[in-house]
This record gives sequence, C-alpha cells and structure tokens, in this order.
Amino acid sequence: MKKILVIHGPNLNLLGSREVDVYGKVTIDEINADLKKLAKTRKASIDTVQSNHEGEIVDLIGKAKGKFDGILINPAAYTHTSVAIRDAVSAVNIPTVEVHLSNIYSREEFRHTSLIAPVAAGQVSGFGKASYLLGLEALLGLVGK
Amino acid sequence: MKKILVIHGPNLNLLGSREVDVYGKVTIDEINADLKKLAKTRKASIDTVQSNHEGEIVDLIGKAKGKFDGILINPAAYTHTSVAIRDAVSAVNIPTVEVHLSNIYSREEFRHTSLIAPVAAGQVSGFGKASYLLGLEALLGLVGK
Amino acid sequence: MKKILVIHGPNLNLLGSREVDVYGKVTIDEINADLKKLAKTRKASIDTVQSNHEGEIVDLIGKAKGKFDGILINPAAYTHTSVAIRDAVSAVNIPTVEVHLSNIYSREEFRHTSLIAPVAAGQVSGFGKASYLLGLEALLGLVGK
Amino acid sequence: MKKILVIHGPNLNLLGSREVDVYGKVTIDEINADLKKLAKTRKASIDTVQSNHEGEIVDLIGKAKGKFDGILINPAAYTHTSVAIRDAVSAVNIPTVEVHLSNIYSREEFRHTSLIAPVAAGQVSGFGKASYLLGLEALLGLVGK
Amino acid sequence: MKKILVIHGPNLNLLGSREVDVYGKVTIDEINADLKKLAKTRKASIDTVQSNHEGEIVDLIGKAKGKFDGILINPAAYTHTSVAIRDAVSAVNIPTVEVHLSNIYSREEFRHTSLIAPVAAGQVSGFGKASYLLGLEALLGLVGK
Amino acid sequence: MKKILVIHGPNLNLLGSREVDVYGKVTIDEINADLKKLAKTRKASIDTVQSNHEGEIVDLIGKAKGKFDGILINPAAYTHTSVAIRDAVSAVNIPTVEVHLSNIYSREEFRHTSLIAPVAAGQVSGFGKASYLLGLEALLGLVGK
Amino acid sequence: MKKILVIHGPNLNLLGSREVDVYGKVTIDEINADLKKLAKTRKASIDTVQSNHEGEIVDLIGKAKGKFDGILINPAAYTHTSVAIRDAVSAVNIPTVEVHLSNIYSREEFRHTSLIAPVAAGQVSGFGKASYLLGLEALLGLVGK
Amino acid sequence: MKKILVIHGPNLNLLGSREVDVYGKVTIDEINADLKKLAKTRKASIDTVQSNHEGEIVDLIGKAKGKFDGILINPAAYTHTSVAIRDAVSAVNIPTVEVHLSNIYSREEFRHTSLIAPVAAGQVSGFGKASYLLGLEALLGLVGK
Amino acid sequence: MKKILVIHGPNLNLLGSREVDVYGKVTIDEINADLKKLAKTRKASIDTVQSNHEGEIVDLIGKAKGKFDGILINPAAYTHTSVAIRDAVSAVNIPTVEVHLSNIYSREEFRHTSLIAPVAAGQVSGFGKASYLLGLEALLGLVGK
Amino acid sequence: MKKILVIHGPNLNLLGSREVDVYGKVTIDEINADLKKLAKTRKASIDTVQSNHEGEIVDLIGKAKGKFDGILINPAAYTHTSVAIRDAVSAVNIPTVEVHLSNIYSREEFRHTSLIAPVAAGQVSGFGKASYLLGLEALLGLVGK
Amino acid sequence: MKKILVIHGPNLNLLGSREVDVYGKVTIDEINADLKKLAKTRKASIDTVQSNHEGEIVDLIGKAKGKFDGILINPAAYTHTSVAIRDAVSAVNIPTVEVHLSNIYSREEFRHTSLIAPVAAGQVSGFGKASYLLGLEALLGLVGK
Amino acid sequence: MKKILVIHGPNLNLLGSREVDVYGKVTIDEINADLKKLAKTRKASIDTVQSNHEGEIVDLIGKAKGKFDGILINPAAYTHTSVAIRDAVSAVNIPTVEVHLSNIYSREEFRHTSLIAPVAAGQVSGFGKASYLLGLEALLGLVGK
Repeated sequence: MKKILVIHGPNLNLLGSREVDVYGKVTIDEINADLKKLAKTRKASIDTVQSNHEGEIVDLIGKAKGKFDGILINPAAYTHTSVAIRDAVSAVNIPTVEVHLSNIYSREEFRHTSLIAPVAAGQVSGFGKASYLLGLEALLGLVGK
Repeated sequence: MKKILVIHGPNLNLLGSREVDVYGKVTIDEINADLKKLAKTRKASIDTVQSNHEGEIVDLIGKAKGKFDGILINPAAYTHTSVAIRDAVSAVNIPTVEVHLSNIYSREEFRHTSLIAPVAAGQVSGFGKASYLLGLEALLGLVGK
Repeated sequence: MKKILVIHGPNLNLLGSREVDVYGKVTIDEINADLKKLAKTRKASIDTVQSNHEGEIVDLIGKAKGKFDGILINPAAYTHTSVAIRDAVSAVNIPTVEVHLSNIYSREEFRHTSLIAPVAAGQVSGFGKASYLLGLEALLGLVGK
Repeated sequence: MKKILVIHGPNLNLLGSREVDVYGKVTIDEINADLKKLAKTRKASIDTVQSNHEGEIVDLIGKAKGKFDGILINPAAYTHTSVAIRDAVSAVNIPTVEVHLSNIYSREEFRHTSLIAPVAAGQVSGFGKASYLLGLEALLGLVGK
Repeated sequence: MKKILVIHGPNLNLLGSREVDVYGKVTIDEINADLKKLAKTRKASIDTVQSNHEGEIVDLIGKAKGKFDGILINPAAYTHTSVAIRDAVSAVNIPTVEVHLSNIYSREEFRHTSLIAPVAAGQVSGFGKASYLLGLEALLGLVGK
Repeated sequence: MKKILVIHGPNLNLLGSREVDVYGKVTIDEINADLKKLAKTRKASIDTVQSNHEGEIVDLIGKAKGKFDGILINPAAYTHTSVAIRDAVSAVNIPTVEVHLSNIYSREEFRHTSLIAPVAAGQVSGFGKASYLLGLEALLGLVGK
Repeated sequence: MKKILVIHGPNLNLLGSREVDVYGKVTIDEINADLKKLAKTRKASIDTVQSNHEGEIVDLIGKAKGKFDGILINPAAYTHTSVAIRDAVSAVNIPTVEVHLSNIYSREEFRHTSLIAPVAAGQVSGFGKASYLLGLEALLGLVGK
Repeated sequence: MKKILVIHGPNLNLLGSREVDVYGKVTIDEINADLKKLAKTRKASIDTVQSNHEGEIVDLIGKAKGKFDGILINPAAYTHTSVAIRDAVSAVNIPTVEVHLSNIYSREEFRHTSLIAPVAAGQVSGFGKASYLLGLEALLGLVGK
Repeated sequence: MKKILVIHGPNLNLLGSREVDVYGKVTIDEINADLKKLAKTRKASIDTVQSNHEGEIVDLIGKAKGKFDGILINPAAYTHTSVAIRDAVSAVNIPTVEVHLSNIYSREEFRHTSLIAPVAAGQVSGFGKASYLLGLEALLGLVGK
Repeated sequence: MKKILVIHGPNLNLLGSREVDVYGKVTIDEINADLKKLAKTRKASIDTVQSNHEGEIVDLIGKAKGKFDGILINPAAYTHTSVAIRDAVSAVNIPTVEVHLSNIYSREEFRHTSLIAPVAAGQVSGFGKASYLLGLEALLGLVGK
Repeated sequence: MKKILVIHGPNLNLLGSREVDVYGKVTIDEINADLKKLAKTRKASIDTVQSNHEGEIVDLIGKAKGKFDGILINPAAYTHTSVAIRDAVSAVNIPTVEVHLSNIYSREEFRHTSLIAPVAAGQVSGFGKASYLLGLEALLGLVGK
Repeated sequence: MKKILVIHGPNLNLLGSREVDVYGKVTIDEINADLKKLAKTRKASIDTVQSNHEGEIVDLIGKAKGKFDGILINPAAYTHTSVAIRDAVSAVNIPTVEVHLSNIYSREEFRHTSLIAPVAAGQVSGFGKASYLLGLEALLGLVGK
C-alpha cells in the first residue's frame, strides 16, 4: 500500500473565505476528504498537513524519506520564493507532484516562475480542487511504477 | 455527449523514435488510442489531429466553434512562440487544456514560458502519456459543468 | 489604375464573433466591402485575402512584386513574431501600410512591439474598421506619388 | 459643430528647415492650413498651437475640458518622456489621437516607446503631413459617434 | 472601539542597539508605548507582536480575520521577499498599512521594491518612530470610515 | 513659527473631476484648506502652489532656501521622470516630504519608481487627502527638531 | 552514395532581386546548380527545396529520417524565431549544417541569435553563395565519418 | 567674430551654495565672467543664459539658428531625461559642446547616460569651472574651421 | 576563550544521504565533531545548531550578541533568498564567516548570488567539510585580533 | 601569390591534450600542416602564429597591413572579450575570416557572443580542424576577387 | 616642473591610416609633437608611450608612482573592457585624465561605457587631436593645484 | 613532495601602498614569505609569480601541466574579465583555488561575478593575507587526496 504525503502551503488554511473569485469556495477540509476518498479507491493512504512556515515544510519533506512513497504539494506563495523547499525536494528524492488551484500563468508576472517545478516530476495547475485529484492520480501513476 | 478536439503540435508525429530519453517510447497512436478509450468510458467523443503547421492549428481552433465542447492541446514548440494560436484560443472561447509530455520547467530557459497558458483553463505537464489522460479528465470536468 | 493587395492576418476570419469587447462587431466581409467602395472612389482596385498561415502570407507578398502597387496589411498575431513577413516586405520593396483594429499599445506588453513596423511605410492603429480605411487612404497617397 | 484642439509638440516650429531627410520640407503653417481646410469640409473647427514646453501642453489639455470635442496631438520628443502629458490626456477624458510625421518604429530604440499611446484612442505614424490629416479624419470619426 | 493588530517584522526586536545610524536609538518598547498612548486618545485598542518568522506573521494575519479592524505592519526584511505575507494580507481583506522606520528608497537597490505595498492600503516610510504613529493615524482614518 | 511650502505637481488642478475612481472627489482647494487648518493648530504657516511646469517647480524649490523651513510635495507625474526636481531638492537641502494621493505601488509598473524619494526625508502614499495631512505632520515633526 | 537534403528557408525564392546590397545577385537556381556540381564531384546526391512555410520545413525534416544522410539548411528568418525547426533537427538526429548568405552578426540585433545553431553540427555565415558550398563540404566531411 | 550661446541648465543658478562637496564653491557669475574673458582673447562674443525650464532651453536652441555659431551647454539634470533638447540640437545643426562640472561617470548609475552626447560634437566633464573653459576652447576650434 | 556559534542552514540535516554527487558523504555530525576538535586546539569553544527555519536562524543571530565572539554560517538555500538573515548579521555586528560545501559558482545561476556575502567578513566555498574548518580558522583569526 | 596570416588565439597551444571531449585530439601542428598543404594547392602561402597575449595579437594584425592579403583567426577566448582585436581588424581593413573548432552556440551563454564577428567577413564554427580548412577556402575566395 | 605620462592605448599606432572617417588623418607622432609643444609653453615635460598590451599599460601606470605628476590616457578599446587598468589608476592615485579622439557616445552601444571614467578625474571626448590638448590643459590645471 | 604554483594577478605588485583601506598594508613579499613557511610545514614547495599581463598568466597556467600539482591564484582584476584564464584553468585540469584579499561581494557590482570561480575547485575571499594561507591549506588538502 502506497503512502502519500499531501502538503498544503501558506494561506491555504483560509480557502473558502479567501479571494473567492480566484480560488473558489472549496475548503481545505473538502479537498482533503476528496483526496482521501480517491486514495482509498486506489489502495493508497494519505497524510495531509497545512503549514504557513517554510521551515516546517522543509522539515516535513526531510522526514518523509523512508516513510512516504510520494509527495503531493501545493507550495502556494513559496512556489515563487523558496529555494529551501526546492532543495528539500531534491534532497529526499521522493517523486513529487506540484499542484495549483488557480492558473498561475494568468496571474501576476512574479507568479509565472516556480522554483519547485524544475525538481518536481510534473505540475498540474488551474483546475481548482481537481488539480489536487489529478495530481494525486499522476503521483500514484509514478509511484506505482 | 461531449465532443473534444485533441491537437498534437509540431514534431509529435515523431514520438517514439524522437529523443527517447526526453519523451519516452510512447507513440502518438498509442496516446490517441488511450484517449479514445478514456473518452468512451466518460461518454465523450474525441477527434485527434497532428500538425506541424502553426496556421493549420489556428484554422482548426477557429473552426472548432460550435463543433467541439473542449480542446485538449499539446502545442509543443509553438507553446513558446505562437501568439497566433494564443489568439485563436482566446477568440473561440472554448475551454482549452494545455498538456506537455515532459516537464517543460526542467528544460532550456526558453521552454519555461508558455504563450498559451495564460488563455488556457489549466495546464498539465511532466507525466508523459498520462499528461494527456489527466488533461482530458480535467477538460471533461470543466466541460461538464 | 493602382492595384492594392489587402492582407488580413491570423484569426481575422473570426471577426464579429471574436472578443467583441476588444475588436467590435464588424466582420471581415464588411471591412472588405468598405475598402472596395473606397478604392472605387479613388480609381484603384483591391484584392483581399485572409490567411492564418505565416508562410502563405510570405508567399503572397513575394508574388506581389510586379502585380501590386501597394500592400495594406493587418498582420495580427504575426505582427509580434514574424521575421519572415518582415523580410518579405523588405524584399519586395512595395509600399506597405500596417493597420490594427485595436490600439496595440494599450494591450499586453508583448503586443507593444511590431517586427513589421520598422520596414513598413507607416502604421495606423486603434480605430477599428476605420484603421483599414485610413490606411488605404495613406497607401494610395504614397502610391500615387 | 465639433471643435478640435491641435497640439504640435517640441521643435515642430522648426519643420521645413529641420532634418529635411527625416521630416520633409513641409512647414507647420502648411500643415495647419491643410488641417483647417479639411476641418471646414467636415463642418468642424480647429484651434492649433505649438509649444516646446511640457507644462504648457499639460495646461492646454487640462483647459480643453468642456471647450473641445477632440484633441489631435503630435507629442514629438515628449512622446517618449512625458508621464505628465499622458496623465493630462487620461484626466480630461477627451478623445485624443496621436500622430507622428516620421515612422517612429524605424528610428532609434528609445523612439519605439510611446507613453501617450496607451491612453490615446489610436495612433497614425509615418506618413508626413498626411499623418495629421488622417489623424483628424480618425478623430472626427470618433467624435461624431 | 476599533481593534488594531501591530506587527513588527524580523530583527526589529534589536532596535536601539542595531545600526543606530540607520534606525536611530528608539526601542520597540518605546514604539509600542507611544502607539498605545495614541490609540487610547483615539478610542482604539492595539495588540502588538514582534516576530522573526515569516510563517508566524502569516499565521497572525490569517487569524486576524474577525478579531481586528486593521493591521499596522512593518514587514522589515520580509517586505522584499515574502509573497506569503502579501497573500495573507490579500486573503484576509482587512485594511493594512505598511510602515518603515528608514527611507527604504535611499538604501540598497533590493530594498526599493515592496511585495506588500501593492496589496496594502498605503505606505509611510522614512520618519523613524513617527512612521508608526502616522501609519496608525492613517489606519484609524480608514477603519473609521 | 515654521513656514512650509506645499507644491502640487502636474494635473492636480484637475482633482475632483479627474479619474474619480483613482483619486476620489476631493479638490485641491479642499486639500489646501485642510492643510491650512492643520498648520494653524500647529503654529505653522503654509504657502500652497500648483504647477504643471517642471521648470517652475524647480524654480520654486530653488527660491525656497531661506524662506521656508520645509517642503511638502506631491510631484505627481514628475515623480517618475524628473531628475531636475530631484536635484533641486538635493541642492536646497530643506527637509522635504513626498506625498501621493493614490497607492503608486498598486498602479502601472512605471509608477513604482520615484526619482524624488531617495532625496526626500520620507514618503506617504495611498491615503487620499490624508496623505497630505499626515505628510504635513511628519514634516512639522522633522522641522521642529 | 551519400544523400543530402538542402532546405532554403523563407524569402530565398526572391534571391537575386531582393535587397541586392545585402544578398548579392546570385539566384537560388544558381546556388542549387553549383551545389549539385560540387555534390557530383564528391559522389553525393542532393535534393533541394525552398519553402516559406515553417510547418513545411518541419515536415521535410521529420520525413528525412532514413532517406537522407545529412541536411544543409539556410533557415533564413526562421533562424531567429522557430523552436519547431530546432526541435525537428533534434528529433531526427541527422547531421545538420546551418548556412547564411550574409554575416548575420553584422546586421540587426535580433539576427544575432540562432535558435537552430545549438542543435546543428556547425554554422557557416557571411560568404554569399560560398557559404552553401563550404557548408556542403563540411557536411560531407561529417557524414563520411 | 564668432558668436557663442552658453546655456546653463536646471539648478545651476544655485551653484556655490548647492552641494559644495560635489560642485565646488564657484558661482555661475564667476563662470560667465571667465568665459567672457576667454572669449575676448579669442575674438569671440558670448551670450549666457540659465534656465530651469526644458521648454525654454528648447526655445533658445531653436532660435539660435542664424544668430549663433556654436552652443556650449551644461544640460545638468536634463542631460539624462530630455529628448526634446536632443532633438533641438539635432534640428538646428549648430556645433554644440556638452560640459559637466562634476565627473558624471563617478556618480549615480542614472547619471552615466547622456541623451545629448550622441548629437553633440563632444563632451568635457569632471573639471569644475575648467570644464566650461575647455569646452569653449573646443567649440571655438570647431567653429573656426 | 573565544566562543563561536556555528549555524547550519536548511536541509543540511540530510547531509550524507542527500545528493551525494554534489555534497559528498560527510554527515553534519562529523563536521561538528571536526569543528570541535579544531576549536579545542585553538582554545576556543563552539556551539552548533541546525535549522530549516529562516526565522529561527534570525532569532539565533539576534541572541548571539554578547554571548558569542564570532559566527560561522552555512546559510544553504537561504544564502540566495533571505534578506532577514542578512539584516540579522548586520544588526548584531559580530564577525561572521559564510561557508559552502559545494562551489556555488559552478551550479545553477540563482545560486551565484549571495545576499549574506556583502555583510559577512568573508566566504569560503567549494571544499566540502574543509570549507567549514578553513572558515573556522579564518573566523578565529578575525576574532583574535 | 596570395599571403595569408593564420592567428591561433589563447590556449590553442594546448590542443590535443586540452578537454578532448570538446576540442578533439587534433594538435595545432597538425592544423598548421593541413592549412599549408591546402594553401599550396591553391598557390597561396601562409604564416602561422599562436599567442596567448591579446596585445600581441593586436600587434600582429596591425603589422599585417601591406604584408598579408587575408587573415584567418581563431580568437578563442578573446572572441568574447576583446574590443582591441575587433578594432585592429577594423583598422587594417584586410579580409578576415573567424573560425572556431567547437560550435560556440551550443556552449555556455557567454560564448554565444562574438565581438569579432561583426567586423569579420564571415564565420565558420563547429567542424573541428575542418573549420580552419573551410575558413581558409572562404578567405581565398574573398581575397581572389 | 611637472612631469606628465601620456599613454596611447591599442591600435592608436595605426592612426592616420585607420578608419579615416572616424579618426581623421592625424598621426600619433603629430599628436605627440603638439602635446610636447603645449607642455613646453606650460613649463611641463611629457613622456609618451603607445602600447597594444593591457598588461604593459598596467605596468606603466604602476611604475608612474613617484615619477609622474599626472597621467593623460586614451585607453582606446581597453576603455570598455579593462578592470585592470581601472584598478591601476585607482592604485597609484595620480591625477588621471581620460581622452578620446571620437565621440564614443555616438558610436556602438558597447562604446558608451567606460570602466576608466569613474576613477579618472575627468574626460574629454570627440574633438580629435584637440581632445588630447584640452585634456593636457585640464590635467595641468589639476596638477598645479 | 607536492609542488604548488602561486599566481598573483594585476596590480598586486602595488600591495602595501595601494588603497590601504581596501587591501591593508601587507605586501606581496610578506604574503609569499608566509606561504613558503606554511608550505614547508606541509612538506610542499611553492613557486610564486606576479604578472599584470593576462597572456602571461595564460602562458604560466598552460605550462604548469606536469610541473605543478596545484595552482593558487588571485586573478585580481582579471577575475571579472578573463575568459582566457578561465579556459587555461579548464584546459590544464590541475586543481586550482581562487583567492581574494578583499570581500569582492561587498564592493562594486561588477566585482561580484567571477569568470574563474566556475572552473576552480573553490574560492576563499575577504580575509586579507589569510585568504592566501587558507587557500593554500585547501589546495594541499585537495592535492593530497
């Protein structure tokens, strides 16, 4: 049975109330519930965590080695600024899929660049909650190989 | 029954023989077959086309209006250079999903920018053949709304 | 009697339905009709063509030598990306006027640069259908010299 | 009867003697005379003014509110450096057309950018005296709506 | 009675000893005391907090929703690097005023850009302790509307 | 009794009618009246002037030496283009505070850079009329030292 | 016997009449004749084609696999804009030599960058017709290895 | 007898009191007196003028045609921002020498670029008052030819 | 007896397992042991700490004032992104030496810039574990002065 | 009989031992021998020289005037940094061909720019020893005209 | 009696024959003769040297300490590339004046930047031989203080 | 017994007198003496050389092959401009350590980039004479492996 670590980055705890025109009304709990349901049908288990702290996310990834088979991460704001999370992903060498609720390429210029993408296996962006579910499918595909 | 147009951009006809270390051994026929199978299970139909001609792709998108409910496109090299395809996508206003076999963000600098992404609904990249299948799922999700 | 070649670039076949807030409701047929009417009053004849293909536009310009006295072109998306059309205009050395329906300088950054403008005689932009009519007047002024 | 304010920017008082290879032999008086003649045939009146002073041009535009129906401006050198004239045009919200005698896009790099264009209705450049006449026609078209 | 959250960013705990030529001799306790005094005269209450942790500041802003009417923040070093704090300010949609002790525009190039400013209501910089007091006045003006 | 020179830059004479969504409905006369009222309570006197002319503003600052104790300036459009005003501020060495009605950092890219800020004592932006009043308070604080 | 595909890019059909000061009076037929003569002395055969269409050139290269031992290409305007041709050259993995009639490095800035060069074996530029002949010699040298 | 127009740009009226560490204690009157003395020994006459107004300087240069044989200009702040003064110098086609009191190349980055230099005959910078005197000598050398 | 604080930045806890081709097989415990051994021979004492949290590192440096005579820091990923750590180093004004295991100048472009270096006393990079030992020697040399 | 000067730039004395994967095993003596053989068949004579000194290469080119009919140069590292060699080539006005062993366009970014190319007649790069031989043929073609 | 070292940089030995349209017909010997004549009238002595070698120029400047009172240098091509000459000028701390025959600001972009200017006392450019003579006057003025 | 070549770059012969505030009072002879002493204790021998000539340094490195086991180099000004020295270091493939007396990262922008660093084993900067000694220790560590 494959184990997946799902990491929600900064401010995603505010989903549902935050800028509804950009992110929609879905909450983080609904996303987690749907991810769990999907994991179950695929005979996988998932752990979910949300953190606003770059260092905490680095800690989590560092400790994932040997405990998890894949990482599904929405790095949110840290997508564009965190070399530390990038290095953590490189260091642990666990298949990692990056997801975004919104289409980051149709927003401000500074959101068009992801420091994480070059070291992730792949990226899904723009489909709201579905980005997570498609990302999990992609990840299970990679992990199952 | 939803109708989807699948567009494969330049050089994708060479898949399977071309740079196997980057794109894998999968062929365009296998991708099309798998997309059709998936479409069938979702009660959708798909038309597939491959073209090396920017103008032809613009023609196809322009004529899709009223005939197709969604577009799944791998613009390949034109991702980075075609304002014309971008304008076509904007013009027809049909939900469009952009997919890439490879992780374009871990390749040459000039492949990190997509002219299509800002007008697409979303993007899936890096998962080989699975990018197409996940992209189709995402598109059907959007179209079904 | 002066002969003018009118070239409509990519996606202009979609005028009238396409992004009405940017381009207005006018269709390419109406523009052509009005251009013909104006040409008639000026004792000139015009040929009109629309193409989504960069290569086709290059072909047309290359063959215009000796057949046409002037070229009126709305290069649309190719304005910003086509060195080939620029080179064709330079090569045939026929007076060429560049027109745009919308004010390209109040749109996205990448639309502020025209590869064609430096080799055209002049440019008219921002007046909708009137850009074409003013451009034709300007061209006839140049050609008549 | 529509009233139009024509503003000639810096150094245009020197037209006819100044760099004849770039600007031709036409003088500002001839341009003004032709503009008046054209205005007359269109049942419009025009006031013309030339100034080398950025502040004076800003003053003129600011006072145009309620007195003029449209502004025809050749901002000359201030095209590329004056945020103040741009802000004046935005502020008074009178239809404004920008004209240039020469093709600014085939000259030095720093002349390729217009600070005024994004807030003008449209732009005509490269046709010598005819740029003004076409610009006036365009403006009367806008104002008459 | 309006409630204001005052956030002091990284290294501001060192005020008074740190680079006295840039920041002066004032301490964070003196600033807080003066802010409280001012708040009192305006019938407002303030909570003050200092943190060197980007994530902690994001937490604080996220939790401010419903508890505070306004945020007064000196993001210090995070001004120039934190998309996460910017997103938090956008997300909670509470009027936020950004303050700086020193004139950030007369310091190193990289301090001239604020990621926070575009989503803040306004900014006060360069007046030492007075920047905070003026910022609080500005904020109370906004909040009282 | 401290004497303050208040300078309103280009187009601020149009306040109240100009782009109300950006600048609000306040007029320059109301701002001046409120500044005078505030000055009175602080035992200071103010002179106010508005000019659209860069050179005039340079003249005014140059002549302020020995006559005024502080300068409150909203350089408006000249904020981003005038080295001459910057040099005047440097030259007279009178404490100068820069104010802006709107938050210049949430507007067009070219408005994010102030040539004046590096030589001003500080800056207040984004609070409408209150920017001026806070700026005057800040200035009186500096001048009173 | 080695087989070589010679591809002439956009506007090269106009050689001889086009901008004689830049490209000289040689025609494409003369170049092809000389290339054939040279090929004959080297016991090689050549096929020549000219196209203004980026997509057609991509088609040609894609189909060259297994039919040709080497490609001699003057990508002309597409040198600077075509990622699709670059990808085609990479994909077929046939030794490819890039040639230019003029010295592209002494012309406009945008002609100094070749998207094709990094994936070609080598480049010859600046020698007019001789660029092609030297390029063919270089190619036969590579292919014969 | 040659006639020379000497133009002192913005803020130079403040010389002697302004930033003495950068510009020294010399006043504009002393410079003018020394220039006149030198002119006398060379059988030339000079007119001197100082202005803070860009438009006024443009006026002066425009009217110099036919009245003066050469122009000696210290454009000061307008060196870096005025296309209008550059165009005036080009337009009148009178030999023009640019001088600077300070070494503009050892000051702020934005002072390293002169818009005037490319159209001036030459430039002298860094020698305080002597820059003017050497510049006048250079100019008389050019004019006397 | 001199007291030195040794700070290991993000992901350095993973040393030995992480990307062995870049960082080698040495572990953080081995580095600390060797540093302690070296310190002992120099009559110095060292405290070592590893943290993935930018804020924690800022805390540590802020509290080092008065307790430590020097700081030896490998800021790892934060080298390139943390203005906060830079400001902390500036603020406490304790001699600080920056070390890197790998040669950051032969890695990705974004690793070539250090925000810390300009405020550190010096830098040692590229020698694996030896970078730390040489850095400690350098630091003791500075501190002993 | 035409006389050609062949200049080998810095580090080319190390050919054969130096980075064999980039430059191959050929030595400078073999290249010179082959060039001499080719020259003989063309009734030309060549002098060859290798130097690591920029100044020496400038000396050699300066003295070539009147002694040599053409220059064949591999400027190696000085390709990218030497304005002095560029100026020497311009100054003597002898036909000059630039050659490179490797394809400089597929190496580091800084090797993509040649300061020499704009003043050379043409360039041959990427064919190892054959670059020299083809370059000599090209040069003899030019010189013989 | 003041002693001045005059350094002519690379390719200046070719003056008179080299690009006469840019540099005129004057030779280095004539310049030296005129400099000596001028020096004599000023009771100064000069040593002149020309070198194409950056290192030699660095040697000369380094040895000038204690032997010369001033340096007059035309760094020619090294103006734009030599940090070594810049450092030599800084190191010896002898008043140094930079001269150029041509107006470097009206030539290629890369000639607009001088690495030497920021450490020189001042610069004279554009007056042909007179640049040297004016530069010597300027230098004697500085040295005599 | 290991043999080390120590290369001092341009202007380092002036150490001790040159800009004492940047480089300190140490002379090159003292550095060499200390390096020899250290080498002796490590059973290594060193040869030292200083040169202001880029070409000479390239010669030295090229000839070091087979004679020296390591190179310790302070490239000084050539750090930022010499591709030739970089290529020499790459070519000979002898372990090379780069040292700098001053902290190049806290000086002018153009000193922040080293062309040598990417091909050196590592770098030590900022510790004055100690940079050399630490660099030698690092080099002996590498060479001894």
